Amino acid sequence: MRLSFTPPLDPGAYAFSHRIRVRFAETDAMGIVHHSRYLPYLEETRVAYLRHLGHPYQENQAAGIDFAVLEAYLQYRSPLRFDDEVDVHLVVADVSRATFQIGYLLTVGGEPRSTGVTVHGAIDRTGRAARLPAWLRELGARSDLGG
Amino acid sequence: MRLSFTPPLDPGAYAFSHRIRVRFAETDAMGIVHHSRYLPYLEETRVAYLRHLGHPYQENQAAGIDFAVLEAYLQYRSPLRFDDEVDVHLVVADVSRATFQIGYLLTVGGEPRSTGVTVHGAIDRTGRAARLPAWLRELGARSDLGG
Amino acid sequence: MRLSFTPPLDPGAYAFSHRIRVRFAETDAMGIVHHSRYLPYLEETRVAYLRHLGHPYQENQAAGIDFAVLEAYLQYRSPLRFDDEVDVHLVVADVSRATFQIGYLLTVGGEPRSTGVTVHGAIDRTGRAARLPAWLRELGARSDLGG
Amino acid sequence: MRLSFTPPLDPGAYAFSHRIRVRFAETDAMGIVHHSRYLPYLEETRVAYLRHLGHPYQENQAAGIDFAVLEAYLQYRSPLRFDDEVDVHLVVADVSRATFQIGYLLTVGGEPRSTGVTVHGAIDRTGRAARLPAWLRELGARSDLGG
Repeated sequence: MRLSFTPPLDPGAYAFSHRIRVRFAETDAMGIVHHSRYLPYLEETRVAYLRHLGHPYQENQAAGIDFAVLEAYLQYRSPLRFDDEVDVHLVVADVSRATFQIGYLLTVGGEPRSTGVTVHGAIDRTGRAARLPAWLRELGARSDLGG
Repeated sequence: MRLSFTPPLDPGAYAFSHRIRVRFAETDAMGIVHHSRYLPYLEETRVAYLRHLGHPYQENQAAGIDFAVLEAYLQYRSPLRFDDEVDVHLVVADVSRATFQIGYLLTVGGEPRSTGVTVHGAIDRTGRAARLPAWLRELGARSDLGG
Repeated sequence: MRLSFTPPLDPGAYAFSHRIRVRFAETDAMGIVHHSRYLPYLEETRVAYLRHLGHPYQENQAAGIDFAVLEAYLQYRSPLRFDDEVDVHLVVADVSRATFQIGYLLTVGGEPRSTGVTVHGAIDRTGRAARLPAWLRELGARSDLGG
Repeated sequence: MRLSFTPPLDPGAYAFSHRIRVRFAETDAMGIVHHSRYLPYLEETRVAYLRHLGHPYQENQAAGIDFAVLEAYLQYRSPLRFDDEVDVHLVVADVSRATFQIGYLLTVGGEPRSTGVTVHGAIDRTGRAARLPAWLRELGARSDLGG
């Protein structure tokens, strides 16, 4: 287990935020968002963050680099419901030579609903581990979150 | 609209049947299976049928043929619920030179819950319309469903 | 089959439009958006339209009315891909006493990718067919699309 | 974070196993099963295990008990692909008064592909934490995995 980052509950500790409105198709028979539906929210937020940074997903793919998901962790604090406007806060953390972690906080109206972490590795076109791009390593260096 | 086949309500009119148990993740906040979740049931049944016929999906892919979904239609008669064991009945219909249709009947305990039709076209590796394989055209010829 | 509306290819024939960006999680191993993933796009657009009309989904639920999906039809003209910004155009059509149809046109950069129709019925809390709300019947009366 | 169990890589260390065939709809544009699609596999296996134990999900619901997912963790070791027959191995672990953990190992042809853990709490009809049923506490007592 590489997972080491503990996502804080303070939205101010995050570098980026992306709003997602819950679809009816994402709810389940308990009347809440199914727990498997959070991972696409985190992914959509990562994609929005890369675009925001000026290094969109497609640029990385063109360079032969993909960021595989190695591990994923979610803590469900209180449920999300249909039509909730969810702010997904994101911060890059624990960047090493070949892997990095991303911490997430999901809030609705400023109130924490869930936290999560994904661990990623850069892989080349053959699926082998690759060095992280320079801009990503620098991003980790600039981050000084206590975790 | 190429859609022309009317799927019958009699299970005896179908060539193949495949059982699927409803996952909790497929339900929605109305307590029933979400209407978008039926299409993967139809697809799983098509894949099982191709395997049953001795022409598995992978064989067609290796031959450079893919069966694109051109149209899809579903009629929801009465809902599916969590843990239901659904029998998906399937029949190939209305086979032309480049397209074919598949009719579906979904039953639980023999009782009709839904019907559906998908319209498919064979495409080659460049995405262009291709001739249907001979075994598939013969399948259409053997079928004498009134529709 | 109640389905009767033919969705036009001209975006100008639609009453409302809603933009959705394709998630990576919605693609499949053919590199395109899986055909089952369109139905949640249509649903998200219906919900946005009801909100736009001032009759949000929750208001209808509070009034004991739900709009069940009775039938759904999709025609896939050319594929959607990851990160595409899809404009889902919507128009209410063929309103009867207890059912109505919605036509959809999906475009990317103004170019048609898909059309669809859903047929809905109003149901009350016991699941029985109910009269459509007045605002919805009037909506149908105002529409004079040739189809 | 309650997550404490480390799922072993030896299938012999698990109490139960359930086979799932990968659907095409579960793949993504990287040609592999999307990482969000594993959680429904774990859930389907939990449901099959409860049925196998003679305490099906519906019995617990009728007794007013639900097992909420509090945390979920997945480690993706090597990808799953379309049509893979995945054996999901499961073991209950770390049972406390109100929570328990489940460890998972996913294998294809006996080869490990992924491990996971879910942390669950019993909740009553009002959503408050409830005592675990006796049979579940005993299940934990019988388990003597090192973890």
